[in-house]
Amino acid sequence: MALLSRIESALEASLRLSGAPGCPPRLHQAIRHAVFPGGARIRPQLCLAVALACGDDDPGLSDAMGAALELLHCGSLVHDDLPCFDNADTRRGLPSVHKAFGERLAVLAGDALIVMAFRELGRASAHHPERLPVVMRLLDESVGPPTGIIAGQAWECESSARLDEYQRAKTGALFSAATAGGAAAAGADGQAWFALGGNLGEAYQVADDIRDVVSDPALLGKPVGQDLLLDRPSAARELGLDGAVIHFDRLIAQAIDSIPVCPGEGLLRSLVLAESRRLVPSEGPFGVDRPARVAPMRSTPAIEPAGAARSGFKPSTVLGAGQAS
Amino acid sequence: MALLSRIESALEASLRLSGAPGCPPRLHQAIRHAVFPGGARIRPQLCLAVALACGDDDPGLSDAMGAALELLHCGSLVHDDLPCFDNADTRRGLPSVHKAFGERLAVLAGDALIVMAFRELGRASAHHPERLPVVMRLLDESVGPPTGIIAGQAWECESSARLDEYQRAKTGALFSAATAGGAAAAGADGQAWFALGGNLGEAYQVADDIRDVVSDPALLGKPVGQDLLLDRPSAARELGLDGAVIHFDRLIAQAIDSIPVCPGEGLLRSLVLAESRRLVPSEGPFGVDRPARVAPMRSTPAIEPAGAARSGFKPSTVLGAGQAS
Repeated sequence: MALLSRIESALEASLRLSGAPGCPPRLHQAIRHAVFPGGARIRPQLCLAVALACGDDDPGLSDAMGAALELLHCGSLVHDDLPCFDNADTRRGLPSVHKAFGERLAVLAGDALIVMAFRELGRASAHHPERLPVVMRLLDESVGPPTGIIAGQAWECESSARLDEYQRAKTGALFSAATAGGAAAAGADGQAWFALGGNLGEAYQVADDIRDVVSDPALLGKPVGQDLLLDRPSAARELGLDGAVIHFDRLIAQAIDSIPVCPGEGLLRSLVLAESRRLVPSEGPFGVDRPARVAPMRSTPAIEPAGAARSGFKPSTVLGAGQAS
Repeated sequence: MALLSRIESALEASLRLSGAPGCPPRLHQAIRHAVFPGGARIRPQLCLAVALACGDDDPGLSDAMGAALELLHCGSLVHDDLPCFDNADTRRGLPSVHKAFGERLAVLAGDALIVMAFRELGRASAHHPERLPVVMRLLDESVGPPTGIIAGQAWECESSARLDEYQRAKTGALFSAATAGGAAAAGADGQAWFALGGNLGEAYQVADDIRDVVSDPALLGKPVGQDLLLDRPSAARELGLDGAVIHFDRLIAQAIDSIPVCPGEGLLRSLVLAESRRLVPSEGPFGVDRPARVAPMRSTPAIEPAGAARSGFKPSTVLGAGQAS
């Protein structure tokens, strides 16, 4: 089954469980609105891609890890959109959850999504119970304080924050958990996969900062110019647009270099490269001009696009479905 | 070690973990403000009392279950106090978290406390890993939809709600998890302990409704008259004050009757009786007049106060520290 189909099925199953008889109907609707239709499902696809690269001997557990990451991501978006944070009216081109269902149900839907994430793991450990504490720890570290996504968001409430620390927590943490969690769900050593997720997550955040400057809100599906408006740390504000693009390309190169030796190594390199082009393209409506000096960004021959083309593999249909988050 | 000391130690350890280097300082302070100084710590004490009654052969796991329940409870209070819900300025006689730290950190502290609850369980399974999925499931059911405390709160956002369904989810769910979870953490059958927690939780909610009508806000540590003001379902509103007291006494009698046969049975009965008198006393500043016809509320000889007095046991110092929550 294609990665995206596995993820959508796992998310549907999770919502069937939370929306079972007895659930307040509007809470269920608010949760559904937060999860479907989804964005790129980038974190769970990354998780499953790594699990497959490591043998994926327990697909139920890797599906659960992927779904857990997406549920947490969706929950964080619901809370980030609240009036006290970004006060965003739209998300993925639709009304944000608090706009559609009110602020109270947005708070509760976000809370429920955190619980549902841990529920996914707890109920998928039948085949390899010894892996449960390992994947749970990866999940709790990626979301909770001191350095998970909640801490990342909380840096916006401090009078000063280091950009790298902020981005590592706000975005990198969930990406690191995606790669390490995919490996751990397949019984491999998660530690070896942290660098891939960490670099990709930081790159993803930088890409988000770049898009916040150069995009059209109608195409992006959410408001732009928010970092400046809300005085948030941003790579594009700190490094300038050119500097941010250089930084992005460097992070992608580091991500590709960090991929451990494994059967699916070549495929993963192609995936990361394709995803990087989707995030910060050189052409098209979101295209940015890359400064000439960073043109040779690829650090290893294995990621050459020709290689990907020869394999007949179409990464864009597997990893990254076109929307921002 | 006394139950309360075990709980405070477990909570302190949890906060050391979440507040480790890298944590945004104000987020850590907001979490601490939500957890310390605590209220009665009634749920974790109930959890540990049941674990002890079942042998408590893995105190690390029962402590984790107790701490998890209290972290969830504290998190739910932080979110319930938010301007979009109760808009409460005070909690336990101090400024509520959003009053002290702002709305954004209140949302994030509540989120963090949910994560920390699951973290507690995930990291305490070394001695009995086979119990981890069991206690996790009890925890996720008690907090997540369809019928956990988040669903209970969400019933306040529906145009109509059944009082019993609302109270069972809003308060009963966490009490049921306390008794079933205490048993499961000690390797016993949690199912047999659901009724005790369910009845106590409902009784506790009814007591809260009664206090919302008859209390002095200075003594209670939070505003009163909120159910009427916020048009919330309430036993005192639905049944009248007399009817609510009758309902409370009946729930306590059912709770006591439901205690399974176990070594600590007599002690638990005394605890429940003492706690019921703390919650809805007949005398003192929160005293209510009990209608004459419910005076013989005790359904079994084992709960006679003389029995508790003869044992030399002082329940009020173990279960219930005087504050409302």
